[in-house]
Amino acid sequence: MSFDQKEMFCLMYKLARLTQTDTRVEHDSMGPVNVPLDRLYGSHTVRSVERFPIGGVEERMPRPIIVALGIIKKAAAEVNKSFGLDDEVCTVIGKAADEVISGKLYDEQHFPLGIWQAGSGAHSNMNVNEVISNRAIEMLDGQIGSKEPVHPRMHVNMGHSSNDSFSSAINIAVAMQLKEKLFPALQKVIAALSKKEEAFKDIIKIGRTHLMDAVPLTLGQEFSGYRQMMANCSDRLESALKNLHQLSLGGTSVGTGLHSTEDFGKQCIKLIAEITSLPFEPATNTFEAIAACDRLVELHGDLNSIAVSTMKIANDIRFMGSGPRCGLGELSLPENEPGSSIMPGKVNPTQCEAMTMICAQVMGNQVAVTVGGYNGHFELNAFMPLIASNVLRSINLLGDGLATFCNNCIDGIVPNMERISKIMSESLMLVTALSPHIGYDQAATIAKTAHQNGTTLRQEAIKAGVSGENFDNWVRPEDMLGPS
Amino acid sequence: MSFDQKEMFCLMYKLARLTQTDTRVEHDSMGPVNVPLDRLYGSHTVRSVERFPIGGVEERMPRPIIVALGIIKKAAAEVNKSFGLDDEVCTVIGKAADEVISGKLYDEQHFPLGIWQAGSGAHSNMNVNEVISNRAIEMLDGQIGSKEPVHPRMHVNMGHSSNDSFSSAINIAVAMQLKEKLFPALQKVIAALSKKEEAFKDIIKIGRTHLMDAVPLTLGQEFSGYRQMMANCSDRLESALKNLHQLSLGGTSVGTGLHSTEDFGKQCIKLIAEITSLPFEPATNTFEAIAACDRLVELHGDLNSIAVSTMKIANDIRFMGSGPRCGLGELSLPENEPGSSIMPGKVNPTQCEAMTMICAQVMGNQVAVTVGGYNGHFELNAFMPLIASNVLRSINLLGDGLATFCNNCIDGIVPNMERISKIMSESLMLVTALSPHIGYDQAATIAKTAHQNGTTLRQEAIKAGVSGENFDNWVRPEDMLGPS
Amino acid sequence: MSFDQKEMFCLMYKLARLTQTDTRVEHDSMGPVNVPLDRLYGSHTVRSVERFPIGGVEERMPRPIIVALGIIKKAAAEVNKSFGLDDEVCTVIGKAADEVISGKLYDEQHFPLGIWQAGSGAHSNMNVNEVISNRAIEMLDGQIGSKEPVHPRMHVNMGHSSNDSFSSAINIAVAMQLKEKLFPALQKVIAALSKKEEAFKDIIKIGRTHLMDAVPLTLGQEFSGYRQMMANCSDRLESALKNLHQLSLGGTSVGTGLHSTEDFGKQCIKLIAEITSLPFEPATNTFEAIAACDRLVELHGDLNSIAVSTMKIANDIRFMGSGPRCGLGELSLPENEPGSSIMPGKVNPTQCEAMTMICAQVMGNQVAVTVGGYNGHFELNAFMPLIASNVLRSINLLGDGLATFCNNCIDGIVPNMERISKIMSESLMLVTALSPHIGYDQAATIAKTAHQNGTTLRQEAIKAGVSGENFDNWVRPEDMLGPS
Amino acid sequence: MSFDQKEMFCLMYKLARLTQTDTRVEHDSMGPVNVPLDRLYGSHTVRSVERFPIGGVEERMPRPIIVALGIIKKAAAEVNKSFGLDDEVCTVIGKAADEVISGKLYDEQHFPLGIWQAGSGAHSNMNVNEVISNRAIEMLDGQIGSKEPVHPRMHVNMGHSSNDSFSSAINIAVAMQLKEKLFPALQKVIAALSKKEEAFKDIIKIGRTHLMDAVPLTLGQEFSGYRQMMANCSDRLESALKNLHQLSLGGTSVGTGLHSTEDFGKQCIKLIAEITSLPFEPATNTFEAIAACDRLVELHGDLNSIAVSTMKIANDIRFMGSGPRCGLGELSLPENEPGSSIMPGKVNPTQCEAMTMICAQVMGNQVAVTVGGYNGHFELNAFMPLIASNVLRSINLLGDGLATFCNNCIDGIVPNMERISKIMSESLMLVTALSPHIGYDQAATIAKTAHQNGTTLRQEAIKAGVSGENFDNWVRPEDMLGPS
Repeated sequence: MSFDQKEMFCLMYKLARLTQTDTRVEHDSMGPVNVPLDRLYGSHTVRSVERFPIGGVEERMPRPIIVALGIIKKAAAEVNKSFGLDDEVCTVIGKAADEVISGKLYDEQHFPLGIWQAGSGAHSNMNVNEVISNRAIEMLDGQIGSKEPVHPRMHVNMGHSSNDSFSSAINIAVAMQLKEKLFPALQKVIAALSKKEEAFKDIIKIGRTHLMDAVPLTLGQEFSGYRQMMANCSDRLESALKNLHQLSLGGTSVGTGLHSTEDFGKQCIKLIAEITSLPFEPATNTFEAIAACDRLVELHGDLNSIAVSTMKIANDIRFMGSGPRCGLGELSLPENEPGSSIMPGKVNPTQCEAMTMICAQVMGNQVAVTVGGYNGHFELNAFMPLIASNVLRSINLLGDGLATFCNNCIDGIVPNMERISKIMSESLMLVTALSPHIGYDQAATIAKTAHQNGTTLRQEAIKAGVSGENFDNWVRPEDMLGPS
Repeated sequence: MSFDQKEMFCLMYKLARLTQTDTRVEHDSMGPVNVPLDRLYGSHTVRSVERFPIGGVEERMPRPIIVALGIIKKAAAEVNKSFGLDDEVCTVIGKAADEVISGKLYDEQHFPLGIWQAGSGAHSNMNVNEVISNRAIEMLDGQIGSKEPVHPRMHVNMGHSSNDSFSSAINIAVAMQLKEKLFPALQKVIAALSKKEEAFKDIIKIGRTHLMDAVPLTLGQEFSGYRQMMANCSDRLESALKNLHQLSLGGTSVGTGLHSTEDFGKQCIKLIAEITSLPFEPATNTFEAIAACDRLVELHGDLNSIAVSTMKIANDIRFMGSGPRCGLGELSLPENEPGSSIMPGKVNPTQCEAMTMICAQVMGNQVAVTVGGYNGHFELNAFMPLIASNVLRSINLLGDGLATFCNNCIDGIVPNMERISKIMSESLMLVTALSPHIGYDQAATIAKTAHQNGTTLRQEAIKAGVSGENFDNWVRPEDMLGPS
Repeated sequence: MSFDQKEMFCLMYKLARLTQTDTRVEHDSMGPVNVPLDRLYGSHTVRSVERFPIGGVEERMPRPIIVALGIIKKAAAEVNKSFGLDDEVCTVIGKAADEVISGKLYDEQHFPLGIWQAGSGAHSNMNVNEVISNRAIEMLDGQIGSKEPVHPRMHVNMGHSSNDSFSSAINIAVAMQLKEKLFPALQKVIAALSKKEEAFKDIIKIGRTHLMDAVPLTLGQEFSGYRQMMANCSDRLESALKNLHQLSLGGTSVGTGLHSTEDFGKQCIKLIAEITSLPFEPATNTFEAIAACDRLVELHGDLNSIAVSTMKIANDIRFMGSGPRCGLGELSLPENEPGSSIMPGKVNPTQCEAMTMICAQVMGNQVAVTVGGYNGHFELNAFMPLIASNVLRSINLLGDGLATFCNNCIDGIVPNMERISKIMSESLMLVTALSPHIGYDQAATIAKTAHQNGTTLRQEAIKAGVSGENFDNWVRPEDMLGPS
Repeated sequence: MSFDQKEMFCLMYKLARLTQTDTRVEHDSMGPVNVPLDRLYGSHTVRSVERFPIGGVEERMPRPIIVALGIIKKAAAEVNKSFGLDDEVCTVIGKAADEVISGKLYDEQHFPLGIWQAGSGAHSNMNVNEVISNRAIEMLDGQIGSKEPVHPRMHVNMGHSSNDSFSSAINIAVAMQLKEKLFPALQKVIAALSKKEEAFKDIIKIGRTHLMDAVPLTLGQEFSGYRQMMANCSDRLESALKNLHQLSLGGTSVGTGLHSTEDFGKQCIKLIAEITSLPFEPATNTFEAIAACDRLVELHGDLNSIAVSTMKIANDIRFMGSGPRCGLGELSLPENEPGSSIMPGKVNPTQCEAMTMICAQVMGNQVAVTVGGYNGHFELNAFMPLIASNVLRSINLLGDGLATFCNNCIDGIVPNMERISKIMSESLMLVTALSPHIGYDQAATIAKTAHQNGTTLRQEAIKAGVSGENFDNWVRPEDMLGPS
């Protein structure tokens, strides 16, 4: 969180621009607009900023969307070389797009628009067009805002429209974030749980069903269930991801591809696949691909499943870690923050808390995505920024959250061997092992007496005439861990 | 669940009708329709049954809606006496409506329509019109299906339309169910928790924050929090209920009241208030009252709050009841079903399970109601049966669930005094009481040593030179239950 | 909905039993229980009925769950022949189980338990055990309630427990319902949309984005998008279904398989696969399979996606069908019910309304399933009846709903050719076709003038000097349906 | 969005600090920690930053929470004067707290912690303690990080704990934001709708039910419904707000108030009420107030209702504004951004889109708040930052969104008089007015013929022998706007 070189540069850059107090004036069909001199965007962006003063920096269009739009513009420029756009213009658009893709221009505040804008994301598409146009003009020593020789709409947006480019940008952004953030986090968690499964494989503990004492299992078996849950999460995400690889690009505004050419979309998508190393391909049906966001709804259903799995695991862990004296006390969680100096052992499960709060957020996002998903009308879904921002937030939070939870909690879990063993051996549930030897009824009587007296099974069994040796030979939790 | 006289009568009645194998033929503008001879409904109902074969008996329009429509028809008939409808017709409509209100005609299967029909509930409104018309005709020894001398639309529906009558019926049904089911259940739970609060007022126990051992409180204090939560639930429900007393009746199809008369709605509503003993009144704005179901959305928000409160309480109770040996073990829950005969003390918290499952259902219903709520277009919300059925199901489940939970769980909770006292006294948290006497640092050292050695504070304090007597005088949980 | 032979038989059967006024007394570890003489269940079931009086018939455990438990019991009995259970007992259990599987015993009211019971579904498992035991005893002319020679727990439940059998039963029930109800309904809708796509392929209409007039497309292209959406729904459901084929059977109460044998579960599952013709297989990890219901959460995520897709389509259709005079008026929906006899053309889109209400319900169920899904603690998820009932309800409603919507709406959609053509040709959007011929600026001026004057493009173009012939050659919507 | 003086100052301040490359070292019970020299927080904050690297700036603890904690610290310092804390220390804590309250220290990046931290918000509470302590020390020319003479825990946190202060801070923050943001926005919208109601009171238009043409009403009547809906929203919010005025302060960690004094909480709350001019008061039951967040769940239920009402209105408006040629076309929405220069009249309803996306987000937040709400265990709800951030985001988005929607959409709505009048007069629904004069049957025939021929009622009526004069006298929409 501390300032580094890059941040420092960025601040100085801002400051330099701030000293220029003037704004430049741009014109569009509605009249003149004042644009801050230090910004690369143009009149469309300014109008959107002014018309949608909703929330602060936390409500900005997510960076991965802007990056994905940059990728599309880069690919489009390259392809447009074959469709009559000047080679030099194409090249410089590509270079400017690279600075969008790298995030540099985002960090420098050239993309101020929020999530809450046109439902097609058209404003952000124009923001990207304007910034690339101006940055390209700047590179060519032209006059910013002049739209010459690189026009935002005629050149940067050539061959596509807001509708197909924004809907494609969402899929690109989501696929990239899954690959960069969530899959690695899931793999990390699976590996960590696997390690615990192995390390805990001989630790026999009480099982619990309905929260009540049940027959024993090993802590390793318990963690194997968690590992399997996370492995399933990863699998189902893979399957949903596949559907995102279809891009609407080339469908232009309603799916017909009007104002584009037969091959433009296909070639763009091929290039995008190369740039991102992800197997993007043209949509089977462009009408569906623009009118519906169902693939994102489907994907978020799987993110919701991940939240469900994760919440169950984090809950189990914090309950098993509860205590130190008055809870279950089976696990010790890593002490990440100083607890009370006078109250040793009160290590609050804050990592579980952060993780489960994230899961709750993802469950909420699921409803937002669902509501946005079915509200598309006719040829266009006009809830795209909402859907995109929720899907990306869920991916981001789950990705960061799982990595953090793994590093600061799972990895450091230590079983309290003594406690685990003590409460397991006190459990009355082990009585089932006596039954084959002394009969069901006598075994039941022994258990009942122990329950009433608050004694152990062994104590009552001996009182009832079972030798200590026999008891120890018969009542062996290690023989209760699998089918006979 | 066993058959009683009423049920037996009802079966024989059905059987008698079944021996008549013929159907009667009715005609409407679309042609002839076969209506079962043993049914009082007519062609509209049959067409809806045929066109909406969705789900079985569990998807029927809820009985309280039919009852409420019966109340409206009864009131309308009475009022229509002053608006030119024949007195005898009015009287017999009233009598037939009484059989709808009593539930008799519902039990006899005259209301077969499902939830999934016209979004205005128009089909159920016509179902009620047809049944009342035919039952009235039957009473007058006329020919069923002849629409003479009591016409379903001209007479039974006179002065109102599907839109105002169905939207009013929902409010009436919901208000009645709240009064009959949910308020009494809440009062019962509040009383039961109050009793426990009093009974448990001297039982000192460990407090838990973040699931970890914290400073002590009494079990009575803990239950006072639960009691307060349920009291708040009741209060907020009262406030939402008030808004339901406004009825749209008189607004007819779009709120203007066209085809009705100035006073019809007002007089009807006055009568409905008398019949139900609930303070219904004409809607301030009939356009809002027909176009929007926001008051029901608001109410369900409060039902959702009740689910939240209840789930927290039921969760706490089952965790405190977990064990008997390997859980928290502070409470014993009543043993309602035989557990394992060989495994004493494994009393599964099934009442908590049923209760929390209900809460989860209500949280789901909240989303269904929300989606239905905002999807009304222009002059009419066409998701009314969905909204009504979910609100009524939530009320019904919470009402039955809370009463059951109270009777079979809360009432029978018994604290395990020994266990509560034992783990509380073992807690290291009590060390804070030592600090004023021997200094913070030495107190901390004692706690740390006890934590490391798995010993008690008392043991380590004595080792460190504190006399047992002093320890017992200083470390008194009963002095830690309030501010100094 | 009218009574048929089967129902009549069923009523007489009930009536016959009702004449026997006595109940029989059964005993369990908690004392005597009165069981209605006409019922095949026993004391466990009665106690659950008495302890969970929550809701009426609409809250019963869904029939497919009981059927699936019947399948499990049948398979278990067969397999138990190899594990020491008497052959005749096995055979008669199988025969009794067949009557559970056929639904006969469900119809005869032997399964009265509700959804709101033990969270493990243990009560319903015991209900099935008791009914099969008693029916088997009845077949052997034994005494009902005697538990001899067929014991509900020792024989019918042999080799498995509530936990693995109920969790397996959910998967079986869900997979069967998907196969029987939802997949066929989806196929039907896909076929119907395909047919419309073909039939409408030459009907050119205005496209709409942001609800505003946009460039044209064909009605066939629009419907191709819908067809693709439903095809995607079917695909993603296939993928989620696969995960349901893993059964926990053999894991017994906590996943270890204690009290069962190595092969019992595997052989049972093999038999279940044969009985159901579905590729069930043993769970990779039994701990996960009992502790988590994530596969059902995942599946419901896909049901939620289907609801999203369907709601969008049904919304589009009703908006395109709005009118007849004051709406979009592009489609005529089938007239299923008589509308107002005096108001021709007011065909309310009631099928769309029922369908979209169902979608809203499924979106609500998604939250209920999610909440239930992550609330499993330790070795068992104790929200299983909630999850099962919501998943099954969603499948049932979507299955019935889609089939009904297809039969009574989609199949009968008729385009209003004249209206479609008229408004499309009036659209100002076609001006883009003029631009290459007369220049962008003049084209824009023509459009603007037409907008101001409320005239057509053609009128203003001619005024501006374009010949009518040229206009008709240049402005050809049929040339605007794809890329150049 | 452009840089102003304040922002420029802030940047220079940062830059100045950045030139100091050193960090200072602080120590706590877990060892040394490097704290950036330019930051006022201490070791607790740094540890939390390091342990919870989840999301970027958009995931920060919302500013109103920090402000509210500042208010609490200020009040506590003042009250602690009477409880033995040094007067000068109290005064300087108050001064430092003022800089927290003004937002200055937040803007200067001293509160870097995210939402995803300890579920009690303890980290943010310590962050505030540390910043105030250091700022106070700075004011006294002491050494930052020395904890002398102002100790973060002993002095700044004196008399309260994380649990009561954070839960109180949420209520304070939420109440303040409601007062500052949402109530004014609602009032603005109500006033705007009221104005339209008045302005549109004589514009007669077609009513629509089921999306189909229905009987007429005035545009003013329609808008009166919207006005009523928003007025109801405001009312229900008032009622939920009242419950938030109860503060848990004084309950310390579990509600008993241990380590505080009888009067501390009460006096603090009195001061807070003065500072904020809001009627805060001590919680009736502190156990409930710390263990549960039900009042926030209740409040969010009302925010959800506002989202429902708003979404319906925004949907209606954009549908009525659809066109310009091929939609309903009854309203013209203000043209805020340049549309296509060649396509006049395509004014996309982007304000409606932003508004409805916000509503969808609030509906999602509702689920997150609900899940967080019931997951509190025992004495503390450990999902507080989740709940707080969602409630505050919903308030903020609705507040900004409604104000923006009002300014940029509602205020500028212009009815298209000609279109409204034309389609209304073409409607077949007016036929009902003929019926009293020429009989129902003949009226129906006229309507049917007009429907078949695509003609007007008037044309067919004249053909059928009604004089034009009579028709015009009888069919008067202005007589159809109320009951007879």
